[in-house]
Amino acid sequence: MEFLIIGGDAAGMSAASRAKRSDPSLSVTVLEKSQDVSYSACNMPYNIADPKRSMDDLVVRKADVFRDKLGIDLRFGHRAVRIDTGERTVAGLANGSQAFQLPYDRLLIATGASPVVPELPGFDLPGVMALKSLTDGRKVKAYLRSHEVKTAVIIGMGYVALEMCEAFHARKIGVAMVKPGPALLPWLARDLAACVEQELNAHDIRLHLGSEVHCIERSGDRLAVIGEGLSLKADLVMVAVGVRPNSELADEARIELGPSASIAVDQQMRTSEPGIYAGGDCADAFHVVSGQRTWIPLALRANRSGWAVADHICGRSVALPGVAGTAAFKVFDMQVAKTGFNSPEAAEAGFDPESVTIKSHSRSHLYTGGSEIRVHMVVDKHSGRLLGVQMVGRESAAHRINAAVVALHAHMTVAEFVQCDLAYAPPFGGVWDPLLIAANQLSKKL
Amino acid sequence: MEFLIIGGDAAGMSAASRAKRSDPSLSVTVLEKSQDVSYSACNMPYNIADPKRSMDDLVVRKADVFRDKLGIDLRFGHRAVRIDTGERTVAGLANGSQAFQLPYDRLLIATGASPVVPELPGFDLPGVMALKSLTDGRKVKAYLRSHEVKTAVIIGMGYVALEMCEAFHARKIGVAMVKPGPALLPWLARDLAACVEQELNAHDIRLHLGSEVHCIERSGDRLAVIGEGLSLKADLVMVAVGVRPNSELADEARIELGPSASIAVDQQMRTSEPGIYAGGDCADAFHVVSGQRTWIPLALRANRSGWAVADHICGRSVALPGVAGTAAFKVFDMQVAKTGFNSPEAAEAGFDPESVTIKSHSRSHLYTGGSEIRVHMVVDKHSGRLLGVQMVGRESAAHRINAAVVALHAHMTVAEFVQCDLAYAPPFGGVWDPLLIAANQLSKKL
Repeated sequence: MEFLIIGGDAAGMSAASRAKRSDPSLSVTVLEKSQDVSYSACNMPYNIADPKRSMDDLVVRKADVFRDKLGIDLRFGHRAVRIDTGERTVAGLANGSQAFQLPYDRLLIATGASPVVPELPGFDLPGVMALKSLTDGRKVKAYLRSHEVKTAVIIGMGYVALEMCEAFHARKIGVAMVKPGPALLPWLARDLAACVEQELNAHDIRLHLGSEVHCIERSGDRLAVIGEGLSLKADLVMVAVGVRPNSELADEARIELGPSASIAVDQQMRTSEPGIYAGGDCADAFHVVSGQRTWIPLALRANRSGWAVADHICGRSVALPGVAGTAAFKVFDMQVAKTGFNSPEAAEAGFDPESVTIKSHSRSHLYTGGSEIRVHMVVDKHSGRLLGVQMVGRESAAHRINAAVVALHAHMTVAEFVQCDLAYAPPFGGVWDPLLIAANQLSKKL
Repeated sequence: MEFLIIGGDAAGMSAASRAKRSDPSLSVTVLEKSQDVSYSACNMPYNIADPKRSMDDLVVRKADVFRDKLGIDLRFGHRAVRIDTGERTVAGLANGSQAFQLPYDRLLIATGASPVVPELPGFDLPGVMALKSLTDGRKVKAYLRSHEVKTAVIIGMGYVALEMCEAFHARKIGVAMVKPGPALLPWLARDLAACVEQELNAHDIRLHLGSEVHCIERSGDRLAVIGEGLSLKADLVMVAVGVRPNSELADEARIELGPSASIAVDQQMRTSEPGIYAGGDCADAFHVVSGQRTWIPLALRANRSGWAVADHICGRSVALPGVAGTAAFKVFDMQVAKTGFNSPEAAEAGFDPESVTIKSHSRSHLYTGGSEIRVHMVVDKHSGRLLGVQMVGRESAAHRINAAVVALHAHMTVAEFVQCDLAYAPPFGGVWDPLLIAANQLSKKL
């Protein structure tokens, strides 16, 4: 059986490896348009922060391993341009010029996502960059090596933007951030977002909220980011306003799309077209809280979806429940973590949300050290079900969130969650864990 | 209605406060044999570690608050000596001599637990101490102030013993530990216990495993702990071999007892005797994994049981599911955390256990810093249900365990748990959380 995979990052290579391990008789071919496979994109900001480290450090497994040890036919520089679902072939161009056409019995579309770059003047100037692929990362590092970058402007304030802000700051580069919306991290409870804003201020990051960017211009040797009443000089501009799924190939093959034009898949990662799967950042997922389709492209789901495709092709029973919308990131010394819905998202999904925000401490108040931890918790008034949790703090927030993640997967009510026998020891928290304090408060409100 | 409470620590005062807040018309009386209420016993080792801090810092809420703000009739120095279930009265002695007798409509027995002190020669010598109450803590601190303590022997190697070992070490006191059994933390997987042993060795703590203590003798100005082929000189001996429930009063009143002679209670904390509740360290609980009765006296359960009693008395619906056997503690820089059953406990409870032990990392391998984290996970072969998890590591183990705790409460299978959308960001872990790596390995074994 011919198992053909378009895209050699997390989902594609996970599927290829697992399929070949399960059934060595499978013929597995991976078409990768770049020269990189199996790298940790999430580590790029931290790698950029350190001039001594090479981007190649982020390659988790070398191409040779896939080829020689696993027997995967891995083809670099191969860009797929058309899927013929009738003939069951994929056509494309190798190294920009050589046409190829390959048959498949099973096809996995794992084309990932691309950074959104607004179609505005000057966004194609040298020194204006985005960050998604290892190629992007190498460009940023090369630019920092070859130019004296003293100031950077980041367009966008999502978590990639915030991680890049920290990376530039580590390299003693002054950072200004710009976004059109009025709120930093608008999906976060205001009390919690205020902690993040304070952390950015404490590190002299200039935030320009509510500022629409019109264009980027050359300004002598430098660049200028221009908006309404805004002109920010910079040696480098990072565009980090989000990503979009690479679903054009699928769309042209008349495969059904889901939210945000991602590729719609079922719990077996099957698309609407028989024999064709999609996985990773280009595919949608069910949200475990609402059961509705959602598009939240993250690394764990990508890996998991690759495995699921391989397992399904190899005849194993597979049913991925979906994602809980969990995310964690660091903004200097502040940890931000979330899972599930905030109140507006919950209402949108048909729930009747009630929420609470509490302040607690990362350790026992009687134990030395520790720091404030804020928890925002959302519950459905009608059923009492826990719908989402957000946490911000300097210590433990990113690990504490996982108790709430499991509760969401289990469809727990807040009354059930509040009874969980969470760990207690003074160095690690109070008798009542911050999550339990929030749940107790919410229970009173219901 | 007269709500009488025997014991003014976590369970007793939680019940008193919550009952009075819910229904100010209730007459609430608390009989406390000592002069302390509402203190954090768990913080005592850390307080002892610091000569500058007073034990009184550990009082969470002063007696006046309970009396004046909440209107609780709090009586210090009141020792209950007999419960008359026919007459519904409690008789006792105030300040050692004045007899009292008080009626009740509802009675809460919250008498706590006492440290086990073996009945062996010399265990009553000055300088031989145990640690459970604030009075005990004050004695230890006073002894350290008034004596030049250079060496301490700790009899026992449970977590109180280990926390005290750290406290003595912080005060530059050499520590030797003795126990009769051959294994350190025998309930912990051997690989994980080895990490703890290594940590103790690295801090020059001398461990005498497999050494039965026969007696303690005076040796000049000092003490000597004597056993088979063992004679350890010390300036102070700490006896930390466990606790037993203070259930004599209940037993004499013919109230049913549960495991380890704790007081048997239902999910409403009711004993076998109408109108009488028990809560805190003297009472048993259902284990959420097995549904069987167990006795695991810890602070969170104590607080929760006090609230539950108050709620039930005030006419609210209450059903405490029980405990998961969660515990976390710190041994120098090593965090140890567990929840649920290990394999022998699982087999004992009627399960067919399979387990796995994995090594992972607290952060992404590509991110700076971080440290090894070991996970031991136990599952029921028959049903696939997750039965227990243990973790050891220098970073995040105590917080990570809570995801497993919630999974145990939800009766999740390992197949369900492995699909949980746990948080990922390089500073906080790899794409596959250590818990998911363990669950993946176990899934393969099933």
